[in-house]
Amino acid sequence: MKQATHSTRERILQQGLDLLSETGLSGVTLGVLADQVGMSKSGLFAHFRSKEDVQIALLQQMTEVASATVVLPAMGHAAGLPRLTALVHLWLGWTKRAGLRGGCPIASALFELDDIEGPVRDKVLAMESHWRGLLGQMVQETIDLGQLSPTLDKEQFVWELCGIYLSHHASYRFIHDPSADTRAYTAFESLLERSGAEAQQEAAL
Amino acid sequence: MKQATHSTRERILQQGLDLLSETGLSGVTLGVLADQVGMSKSGLFAHFRSKEDVQIALLQQMTEVASATVVLPAMGHAAGLPRLTALVHLWLGWTKRAGLRGGCPIASALFELDDIEGPVRDKVLAMESHWRGLLGQMVQETIDLGQLSPTLDKEQFVWELCGIYLSHHASYRFIHDPSADTRAYTAFESLLERSGAEAQQEAAL
Repeated sequence: MKQATHSTRERILQQGLDLLSETGLSGVTLGVLADQVGMSKSGLFAHFRSKEDVQIALLQQMTEVASATVVLPAMGHAAGLPRLTALVHLWLGWTKRAGLRGGCPIASALFELDDIEGPVRDKVLAMESHWRGLLGQMVQETIDLGQLSPTLDKEQFVWELCGIYLSHHASYRFIHDPSADTRAYTAFESLLERSGAEAQQEAAL
Repeated sequence: MKQATHSTRERILQQGLDLLSETGLSGVTLGVLADQVGMSKSGLFAHFRSKEDVQIALLQQMTEVASATVVLPAMGHAAGLPRLTALVHLWLGWTKRAGLRGGCPIASALFELDDIEGPVRDKVLAMESHWRGLLGQMVQETIDLGQLSPTLDKEQFVWELCGIYLSHHASYRFIHDPSADTRAYTAFESLLERSGAEAQQEAAL
């Protein structure tokens, strides 16, 4: 019986994440989610206490899916530039490869919850900080391996990289620009180049 | 009497734009807007036929406010680099200077409406295309004046500039990063530099 409850919760989370990626947080209400999963609102209440509780659980579910789709495959590449480059390529458009119907829930939430306080915003902020921290660590690792300039402003690199991601999301998912991937790769290559990627490689030869 | 109707509509649009900037399009419903303006839903129906009709009118209102806050003041600067730079600085964080409570409705809509079809999405797409076209024109003008490289990929420049804007929106409005402005200016200076801004100026000396 406990296992059945567990798998119902999993099903809610899987279908809920699909809904979240399509509608953003404002579209995830207990009523809509119950309809989507094919259960009653009171049935849903057996698993989650409130709309915020569901939304936070779905964001946590997203972390797990993104980890499996983006972070883990990148870790299979050699540390430094190969891993950083693989991570960025896996990150761009990751929701499609994860089999989700819509876009990145965090990218949406950054614009949706900018004027709303509360535990859901806190969760998104913690996830975004964690993600930027991970990007920063990979950049630092690449510097330590002598593949990026030791004088690089790491925070600025991550900030501009996040801009490339958001611009790709807008052009790929909203504008449906067929050159979105090429634009993003070009911007990323240029970011690497002015961060000393080529100069460091040449010096190592 | 006609004038009174006109000013009621203006009041709805002004307060509605404030609401739109705070909640995004999903927060703009006839019920919420009627409450905000202090009139009945049926009173609102005398001015707008549907929620989509209101949302499109508010987006149009946004164009007018953004034009007065961002585009017109930029046109007071000399054509070329001074005007392009002024435009970018006026664009970053423009909603605050326009006296709006929240963020840029178009930036939000790019992430909110990526999976929704219909006239509101069409309006946002038209506005975004128009805006990118204006940015492209200013870049072309700057190239023609010999202040940016004649071989510059103009579309790539605009694409990366939009990334700087979105990253600034996320870091300034969501993360509340005190260095958001500095990060954006640094990224923009770097974009200008690698687009030949300095080389062209030196060649002109």
